[in-house]
Amino acid sequence: MNGAQSLLRTLVDSGVDVCFGNPGTSEMHFVAALDAVPEMRGVLGLFEGVVTGAADGYARMADKPAATLLHLGPGMANGLANLHNARRAHVPMVNVIGDHATYHKGFDAPLESDVDALTGWLQGWSRTSKDTESVGADAAEAVAASLTAPGQIASLVLPADVSWGDGGVAAQRIPPPAPSTVDDSTVREIAAVLGSDEPVVLLLGHHGTRETALLAADRIRQATGAKLFAETFPTRIERGAGLPAVERLGYLAEQVQWQLSGVKHLILAGTRAPVSFFAYPGKASELTPEDCQVHTLAGLGDDIAGALEHLADIVAPQAKPMLAEPSRPVLPTGALTPQNWAEVIGALLPEGAIISDEANTSGLLIPMTTAGAPRHDVLTLTGGAIGQGLPVATGAAVACPDRPVICLQADGSAMYTISALWTMARENLDVTTVILSNRSYAILRMELQRVGAQGGEKAGQWLDLSRPDMDFVSMATGMGVPASRATTAEELAEQFSRALAEPGPHLIEAMVPSLL
Amino acid sequence: MNGAQSLLRTLVDSGVDVCFGNPGTSEMHFVAALDAVPEMRGVLGLFEGVVTGAADGYARMADKPAATLLHLGPGMANGLANLHNARRAHVPMVNVIGDHATYHKGFDAPLESDVDALTGWLQGWSRTSKDTESVGADAAEAVAASLTAPGQIASLVLPADVSWGDGGVAAQRIPPPAPSTVDDSTVREIAAVLGSDEPVVLLLGHHGTRETALLAADRIRQATGAKLFAETFPTRIERGAGLPAVERLGYLAEQVQWQLSGVKHLILAGTRAPVSFFAYPGKASELTPEDCQVHTLAGLGDDIAGALEHLADIVAPQAKPMLAEPSRPVLPTGALTPQNWAEVIGALLPEGAIISDEANTSGLLIPMTTAGAPRHDVLTLTGGAIGQGLPVATGAAVACPDRPVICLQADGSAMYTISALWTMARENLDVTTVILSNRSYAILRMELQRVGAQGGEKAGQWLDLSRPDMDFVSMATGMGVPASRATTAEELAEQFSRALAEPGPHLIEAMVPSLL
Repeated sequence: MNGAQSLLRTLVDSGVDVCFGNPGTSEMHFVAALDAVPEMRGVLGLFEGVVTGAADGYARMADKPAATLLHLGPGMANGLANLHNARRAHVPMVNVIGDHATYHKGFDAPLESDVDALTGWLQGWSRTSKDTESVGADAAEAVAASLTAPGQIASLVLPADVSWGDGGVAAQRIPPPAPSTVDDSTVREIAAVLGSDEPVVLLLGHHGTRETALLAADRIRQATGAKLFAETFPTRIERGAGLPAVERLGYLAEQVQWQLSGVKHLILAGTRAPVSFFAYPGKASELTPEDCQVHTLAGLGDDIAGALEHLADIVAPQAKPMLAEPSRPVLPTGALTPQNWAEVIGALLPEGAIISDEANTSGLLIPMTTAGAPRHDVLTLTGGAIGQGLPVATGAAVACPDRPVICLQADGSAMYTISALWTMARENLDVTTVILSNRSYAILRMELQRVGAQGGEKAGQWLDLSRPDMDFVSMATGMGVPASRATTAEELAEQFSRALAEPGPHLIEAMVPSLL
Repeated sequence: MNGAQSLLRTLVDSGVDVCFGNPGTSEMHFVAALDAVPEMRGVLGLFEGVVTGAADGYARMADKPAATLLHLGPGMANGLANLHNARRAHVPMVNVIGDHATYHKGFDAPLESDVDALTGWLQGWSRTSKDTESVGADAAEAVAASLTAPGQIASLVLPADVSWGDGGVAAQRIPPPAPSTVDDSTVREIAAVLGSDEPVVLLLGHHGTRETALLAADRIRQATGAKLFAETFPTRIERGAGLPAVERLGYLAEQVQWQLSGVKHLILAGTRAPVSFFAYPGKASELTPEDCQVHTLAGLGDDIAGALEHLADIVAPQAKPMLAEPSRPVLPTGALTPQNWAEVIGALLPEGAIISDEANTSGLLIPMTTAGAPRHDVLTLTGGAIGQGLPVATGAAVACPDRPVICLQADGSAMYTISALWTMARENLDVTTVILSNRSYAILRMELQRVGAQGGEKAGQWLDLSRPDMDFVSMATGMGVPASRATTAEELAEQFSRALAEPGPHLIEAMVPSLL
């Protein structure tokens, strides 16, 4: 068995059986090994940003890593922005980065670069496999590292000669360490805070926005009157009818300050105290009120749901969570607006949907219009690096072939990783993409004002995506995804329903004017 | 004047008057400053790989830097692969990387990352502007650094508060140092090598593939019988009727070994001794014959053309260069083949064309069919990171609005930076893109065999770009570029002629079967 075969065998035996990739010459033995290890599913992306974003979406839904295959430093570089989002999502992922043969690196061939600088940027686990015999063991360690709470990116650099060499040894799965249990004394200190008469907010992140944690957190809310929020950009939040309704902190600093106004105690479960997404002249970076104490119930590496359940058992032994009632907007009519398109989605969202949300400014009302929709998951832009929505939808659909995936995608951001549509078509993934086509970087029109800059005509051209207008129907069709355009709420409803009824990918370009 | 205004004013005063960019919130004052400094042309790209590739293409043709504007670490990350190509091209470029306000960085907001790790990866000049007063001086130094021979990437990190702060001071242009003049003694040593009876190859790179250097090199060839080659992937090679014909070293190690077989002395002018692009089991990395001595006439930082002229004056005082005669292929007929499409290009290439060549395997015959075409420039894939062709064509067209730009673009590679088409449309650039649509990563089919890997059906799927077939006509139309499809040589000739006759961008999807 060569090194590549031992790597794939070890990954599969460790529970990693999907690999998103885009190969080059230095990875040809890895590609050939896909045939030797039939349990490994290979999913081709036409650009590494699609590959890494798909692995992120997969991990968010599968709660286990996918592998990626990236071609040397430049191939990894193309995947970095979505790896940044995955890093902020704290998801498990195992990157395999092909590299030149060990003896070839010193010759500084054209594709040579400092791969370690790039893996270092990710602040995760990384290793270069030194010889063929070690590859299997390295891979098992990489998987375990990726699954170490809260989850992280593991990057394994695979030199070509290590990959093609004979003498590979498949390694057994290494069980990852369990997340830390929060001390009883810590939980009781938090319980005491909740017992005070002062206003308290309980802020949830990471696995704190999943069902078990949400149910416990809502019991605490019901019993103590504490307010409950989810962090601004959760990795995955479970919501809809039958689950507690938890509002997310806003994107704008002013929203968060309003949401936290008057709060004297902020209790963190799986997240950090909120900070402003960007700095604005004369405004604070920290968004916790000055006279508010911050308490940590559970850190990112802790058993967050367990800590919340423990706390609920202390402060809310009898309380039952309040679950959202089923409720849908009425299907609207008329020309599409920033409001009514969200009502269409809320009215028609299918049971068990997975929403990959990169709607940006156009999506402001989506949390409201879907609050009573059937139970669903929402995957958000954790790291702020745009171009995540389509790839994450791709990976989520690979992880959950029996669930409908809805990608709510802003037009400007869509262009970063538009070739994800092709992968959706090749894999016949059940993804319905709704492009919110406002033909502008609408968020930057707002931000230009908020930072106090005075832009003129030239500045306006950089925030404008018309001239030429993009036609996403043509682009999607060109990548094998059936597509249509909606200009009214009725058209959107009809096209959205039809897309959901048919298997495979669809795209709807919704001509929604800018909110701003 | 704020920091951003002082930066743009300094760039313009230093000769940098084009900025390719894609902004975010932290760069809003830079964007607003475009209106305050009207001499600066701003060109929007929808993805940073387009931005950096365009700046590369611009520099290759303008022989001076463009600026780029990139949004924090993740925005820079998206531009890295084409920055890698630009690094290998040794072109001047000034990146402006917006960053969080200095006081905001410590809060680890979602888009925070280690920007220094990314600038470090580029191995060029880099600096973070510490305060508003320094920005102008930093920018002047960045421009001078970028222009220091042989040319390099200068990266200036611009924190948002440094950008928006008052008290900016525009700085005067700093003249870059002149390239080093090669010692007379070195030139005379090389002259002695040329005077021996042993076979000699003179290998040209960087500015050694430009007119002045080529004319001198050819005089040396005529007088001494030395063979003349250009490096495999020149930054810019001037060629065609009226210039010396210089063959490039091949991509495949075997080709280079054949080209250099029997050579006893390899003389380098602006390049390094050739190494294999990749490692292959059992094959050498270094491609210079074992018993061949390597001599350096001029290093990358030297005045390469000056050294060649000096050498020519010693060894070839009376020699005249032999110039390629005008000669065109006959226009072929019939279904497109890997051969005849290249004949169409050779038959119709217009005077003064700039070819951005990322045709990969499909382009094998282009150097032959265009050897006697009217004088033109060819820009090649210097760093091997695919996705360069369309962006480099974009930048070249901005640099040379009066010259026709031809982008010969492989289909798989095109998908990396396909949104460059939108920028071509917005700027109404005279670029004719020919997509070589063979619906495969054809080069990897070859490489799979060459590295000795045994791929089966699953491996084959990763090298296959059909299922679904991509339709570049639809995609281009969707981005505002008029497009057509050619399946015969006659259709390609007709569509290519028409595209050249009309101003603005065009795309032709040429259905050329894979050579392999």
